[in-house]
Amino acid sequence: MSDLLAKGREILAAQPFSRLVGTELIALSLEHAELALPITEQVMQQHGFVHGGVLSYLADNALTFAGGFALGGGVVTSEMKINYVRPAIGERLIARAVVVSAGRSQAVTRCDIFAVKGGSEKLCAAAQGTIVKMEAKG
Amino acid sequence: MSDLLAKGREILAAQPFSRLVGTELIALSLEHAELALPITEQVMQQHGFVHGGVLSYLADNALTFAGGFALGGGVVTSEMKINYVRPAIGERLIARAVVVSAGRSQAVTRCDIFAVKGGSEKLCAAAQGTIVKMEAKG
Amino acid sequence: MSDLLAKGREILAAQPFSRLVGTELIALSLEHAELALPITEQVMQQHGFVHGGVLSYLADNALTFAGGFALGGGVVTSEMKINYVRPAIGERLIARAVVVSAGRSQAVTRCDIFAVKGGSEKLCAAAQGTIVKMEAKG
Amino acid sequence: MSDLLAKGREILAAQPFSRLVGTELIALSLEHAELALPITEQVMQQHGFVHGGVLSYLADNALTFAGGFALGGGVVTSEMKINYVRPAIGERLIARAVVVSAGRSQAVTRCDIFAVKGGSEKLCAAAQGTIVKMEAKG
Repeated sequence: MSDLLAKGREILAAQPFSRLVGTELIALSLEHAELALPITEQVMQQHGFVHGGVLSYLADNALTFAGGFALGGGVVTSEMKINYVRPAIGERLIARAVVVSAGRSQAVTRCDIFAVKGGSEKLCAAAQGTIVKMEAKG
Repeated sequence: MSDLLAKGREILAAQPFSRLVGTELIALSLEHAELALPITEQVMQQHGFVHGGVLSYLADNALTFAGGFALGGGVVTSEMKINYVRPAIGERLIARAVVVSAGRSQAVTRCDIFAVKGGSEKLCAAAQGTIVKMEAKG
Repeated sequence: MSDLLAKGREILAAQPFSRLVGTELIALSLEHAELALPITEQVMQQHGFVHGGVLSYLADNALTFAGGFALGGGVVTSEMKINYVRPAIGERLIARAVVVSAGRSQAVTRCDIFAVKGGSEKLCAAAQGTIVKMEAKG
Repeated sequence: MSDLLAKGREILAAQPFSRLVGTELIALSLEHAELALPITEQVMQQHGFVHGGVLSYLADNALTFAGGFALGGGVVTSEMKINYVRPAIGERLIARAVVVSAGRSQAVTRCDIFAVKGGSEKLCAAAQGTIVKMEAKG
């Protein structure tokens, strides 16, 4: 495991909410982040699909991991936008985020979330957001 | 309790994820929705603030309740955008969503999320989204 | 005319693109901004409505005027989101932007755009964005 | 020239606002659209950069061309979000939009805008939006 991935997993493990829903950090570099979340009953809404709010949580987290490491840490999520494109059903969610642009104090990142069912992936949501160094916000 | 509020609470109670985090529906009309979520350790990130993804979940849910009742039910969230403006600390979150515009098959809604601490409210996030009738999407 | 409004009009007059489309600054305070744009053939798309891109320009400008004066000037628009809710037809557009939250270096603002026809106003678009001090971005 | 590109150029030529700013359709398929806009004084703001609102117009148009042809025409832009990542200076703007997801009545598209200066391209803005069939909105 790379040092970066180990550091990322340490941060994720320090998030009580991410532990609650079982999020895992699968891959991490200075340009991308990949998170997974098991689909169990507790993350669903009333129709048996993953709650949209859980997709937005996962997008928020993946966007921030990607942007945070691109900026060298000490960041907050400034804002994000998510489009839901298909109900999420299956065994687990995979969120893949990439850095679109990174400056000194701000990064723009994008994320696609896929539902994995029987080994096949379907796109469920697409997101875009802004990550900023903490001292730059206020 | 109004019939609308009772119906809304029934829907919320049918969402396993909303039960997991303890979301409550406080108020509901054809033009607005108000949700509350207790701030406990399980909804936090690594710095002791509410996880941004929990704020985005609450925004998503409040936007959808407001738009869903404006459209007469049977809706999905098409997309939403959230700006995080302040770390959320305190006893609970309150999300207030209003209908900005509602047509036959689509509503645009806005939501403000406040953290309540010692009886005083501070704005933590502002969101805007699109809710659509299920048959209109695909 | 207040000093603030005079200063705002000076900035708007220094924008060649705003002169091209005839934008006017109607009102300005530390908490809000109001812009107008005449609806003429040149701002239309192929169906005789105002081009969505002109609405997004007007939203961008109104969001930035509102946030810029709240932050004391020297700002750039970081990002914005716009929902189009109705085709814009009539004599002119009015964009009203308000400050939702303003810190030391970042403001979140919202804007509603109305089409005025025969003295009556109809909401055409709703926007939300982030304005930042120039030194805070990079 | 493909029939699709010819049809796209006909639509663009029917937009008075796109003629005003000199937008050109460079490429078009069922999965992507590419637009160009010459950088002249008339599209600038007060600091000599392209006005953010012109970038948002170009993003809106590129997102809609990409989504519109993916959906078979007769569409409107429902909403979009844009992040400005760098001041736009140079000879012209190029907007490249791709279809992220297309269903029966709704498409989600993304767009990157580059400023071309002396033959080199720099990313200036990144956008994401929703395009819907006209009958599906209201």
